[in-house]
Amino acid sequence: MDKIVSLAKRRGFVFQSSEIYGGLNGCWDYGPLGVELLRNIKDAWWQAMTYREDIEGVDAAILMHPRVWEASGHIANFTDPMVDCKQCKARYRVDVLLDELSVKKKKEILRDLFAGEFEGQQPDAKIESEFSSRLSSNETLTKALKQSITCPNCGNKGMFTEARQFNLMFKTFVGPVEDASNVVFLRPETAQGIFVNFQNVSSASRQKPPFGIAQIGKAFRNEINTKNFLFRTREFEQMEMQFFVKPGTDVEWFEKWRAERMQWFLTLGMTKEKLQWHQHEPDKLAHYAKDAYDIEYKFPFGWGEIEGVHNRSDFDLSQHEKFSGKSMQYFDPETKEKFTPYIVETSAGASRSFMAFLVDAYNEEEAPTADGKTEIRTVLKFHPRLAPIKAAIFPLVNRDGMPELARTLETELRPHMRVFYDDSGAVGRRYRRQDEIGTPFCVTIDSETLENQTVTVRVRDSMKQERIPVSQVLSHLRSKLS
Amino acid sequence: MDKIVSLAKRRGFVFQSSEIYGGLNGCWDYGPLGVELLRNIKDAWWQAMTYREDIEGVDAAILMHPRVWEASGHIANFTDPMVDCKQCKARYRVDVLLDELSVKKKKEILRDLFAGEFEGQQPDAKIESEFSSRLSSNETLTKALKQSITCPNCGNKGMFTEARQFNLMFKTFVGPVEDASNVVFLRPETAQGIFVNFQNVSSASRQKPPFGIAQIGKAFRNEINTKNFLFRTREFEQMEMQFFVKPGTDVEWFEKWRAERMQWFLTLGMTKEKLQWHQHEPDKLAHYAKDAYDIEYKFPFGWGEIEGVHNRSDFDLSQHEKFSGKSMQYFDPETKEKFTPYIVETSAGASRSFMAFLVDAYNEEEAPTADGKTEIRTVLKFHPRLAPIKAAIFPLVNRDGMPELARTLETELRPHMRVFYDDSGAVGRRYRRQDEIGTPFCVTIDSETLENQTVTVRVRDSMKQERIPVSQVLSHLRSKLS
Repeated sequence: MDKIVSLAKRRGFVFQSSEIYGGLNGCWDYGPLGVELLRNIKDAWWQAMTYREDIEGVDAAILMHPRVWEASGHIANFTDPMVDCKQCKARYRVDVLLDELSVKKKKEILRDLFAGEFEGQQPDAKIESEFSSRLSSNETLTKALKQSITCPNCGNKGMFTEARQFNLMFKTFVGPVEDASNVVFLRPETAQGIFVNFQNVSSASRQKPPFGIAQIGKAFRNEINTKNFLFRTREFEQMEMQFFVKPGTDVEWFEKWRAERMQWFLTLGMTKEKLQWHQHEPDKLAHYAKDAYDIEYKFPFGWGEIEGVHNRSDFDLSQHEKFSGKSMQYFDPETKEKFTPYIVETSAGASRSFMAFLVDAYNEEEAPTADGKTEIRTVLKFHPRLAPIKAAIFPLVNRDGMPELARTLETELRPHMRVFYDDSGAVGRRYRRQDEIGTPFCVTIDSETLENQTVTVRVRDSMKQERIPVSQVLSHLRSKLS
Repeated sequence: MDKIVSLAKRRGFVFQSSEIYGGLNGCWDYGPLGVELLRNIKDAWWQAMTYREDIEGVDAAILMHPRVWEASGHIANFTDPMVDCKQCKARYRVDVLLDELSVKKKKEILRDLFAGEFEGQQPDAKIESEFSSRLSSNETLTKALKQSITCPNCGNKGMFTEARQFNLMFKTFVGPVEDASNVVFLRPETAQGIFVNFQNVSSASRQKPPFGIAQIGKAFRNEINTKNFLFRTREFEQMEMQFFVKPGTDVEWFEKWRAERMQWFLTLGMTKEKLQWHQHEPDKLAHYAKDAYDIEYKFPFGWGEIEGVHNRSDFDLSQHEKFSGKSMQYFDPETKEKFTPYIVETSAGASRSFMAFLVDAYNEEEAPTADGKTEIRTVLKFHPRLAPIKAAIFPLVNRDGMPELARTLETELRPHMRVFYDDSGAVGRRYRRQDEIGTPFCVTIDSETLENQTVTVRVRDSMKQERIPVSQVLSHLRSKLS
């Protein structure tokens, strides 16, 4: 993972946000190559999801009316428990405070709370499991906070307040007065922007269930623990589609969308063995969900969700009907039926997909050098559709008219694809630089070009070279890229 | 303008944000057609600005380190003066409070402040001009607020506090503690995300001045007065490019970019007579600017800025060097010179460009009906590149195999462009529905198609129809669209 993060920074995929000021935790900036990879992922998703008759796109505002988050349940439920140290005022998320204790500390705390029970030698695993099961009770947790746990900041014991729920939505104020009546939130998910526009979209586009609404956009969560590069961040981008169906047909659509979404990642070249389904246990389903599966990718730090496919039942539209007083039902003029559509959601992380495609593309492999030895080449094996740069153009040497020919070719290709011109260093090094950023094709203009108007096209993955007429380069590349 | 706003809602270009909850002032949602128009504008900009050798793209986070806004001057200067009524606590922006007074009130206030000077009949224009010139002095303003101006809310006179500066940046808190040390702001402009990444981009992409960095992204301003549809909103999208040049070459680059940016709007079909340059007066230049021109569009409510081209001197990089302690200079290895680049900025509003393209496309014109009369047709004459839907496909009647042929054609076109299938109502009405959303081409499958495999292609602006073989529709449309 460190190698990938370092390559990402060095070659301009991802920079730390506000890096010159020491960075802002949980925020990242996409550099020149990163922004292209991200755009290509989002465009591929947009095309797959909206170039069809039954899905419409929208782009809703990040700031929404605060009642939206009452209806959605986010104000009540989108929380983590927090405690303050009364002594030094430091604030902690309870689960993190507990997680970070050493086994030794945990044992001390258990002894303290359950006199006599945890004396003598005990296996670490037993301590760990006893600690988490016993501290899961609210009374024991409260007792531990008030009596046994030490503040990591000031070292005082048992000075914690009772745990309170901390909401993960970023809040701000609209207008000049900072009071409760002017609070708005940065959306923690893009989905609500789709739900509240259900009737508007349906009537403007004359769509009837089954149909979907798709959206790509930023969302924000005030995560206490950001981690794993782009995996858990405070600002991120989602690619969500909400499919509105007649109740009773939801299970069938759910299965259909599950299949379709997994196929999307595979079509764009993601390694099949590194993808898996994770079904949410019935007792762990979110309050809105009837059924839920995650598509997980095997990151270097373990399996992590990159997309969720959820059967949300009629929870969302019913809630918005209740809170807004506006009908969210659909009236079918043919059958004269009225119903509140069920929603099948496909919710992909654009930022997480970016990271998964980047990790999946990363390869180190042995490659022969010019002098017959071998070296390790780093190559990003992106699907050509996703590669930030499609073709590099190299004049072999900077004389004999080669640069001019190379520039002419560059000018011809540029309106059709992102190309990169490079005339510095040995051609072997130029290939390696392109391998490292995943450019699928390198076109070299050499002395033979001057004689017979042919160039070599070198393929990134096989490293094979093919000689074709310079006049056919554009059509050759376009057919390979489409 | 009302007609355009109403069309925008009815056909799914723009909806009020959170409309079912009464809307959120200053925020708008793009509907199915709006999101396509917006995407097409942004894609055209991105291709024009980054499909070239000397400009790189980035996508920086909306949340940035708060020191960024100290360095940029936004914390000190990005403010409006506000007053509170001590009686009822209502808060006002001073300029708005003054603007909304009637001439009669203004006369009363002048009499009150300058005893004897404003007695008897006086022309309204004189009152208006005297009022604004005299109240522009701080002392007079303060006196008026404390003695003569009535609160529009509670009606009490002279109960205002002294004017205070209100910052237009939305603020929020990172992490669970809401105190000053955790304040971050929603960026009020995208430009700073480019400045702070200058060295990162330059080194990752091996670029040397002159070169540029381009970015498209959202920005937020806590405007007290939102107005004119998408023109002044709290959440909006910018398309900015910052071009880094050697001091001394800045004036030349400034002129170059001015020409290029105006040309961009013209190339995409905007009416030349509705575009003008507005130069900022030397005494009204922003604190960072050496020279500044706006591209203005003639909206129904008057001329309004849609893009600014600014010579920002070395203000930005010097400030970030000072505040971050990191060098922002460029060292030229060839000339051994070190310098802080000057920046020429092209800053377009994506949302404002959207509105300008929409307004500019709107036409009402007389058109013949089937029965020889004339009617008014509403047509959005978008440049084909910007049109949300490129082609509509109509089977003339729903029998004789026409729907099947139409569906086959739809399937062939869909991977290449956004198409719309419509088989309901008279074909004349179908044409009008497409005119109203700016679809450049309508393809009709009729009885002749069944005989000789030809279809009619009807052109939106001329309403002329041409008969071509169905097998050539894709290539015909692609050549017209590119």
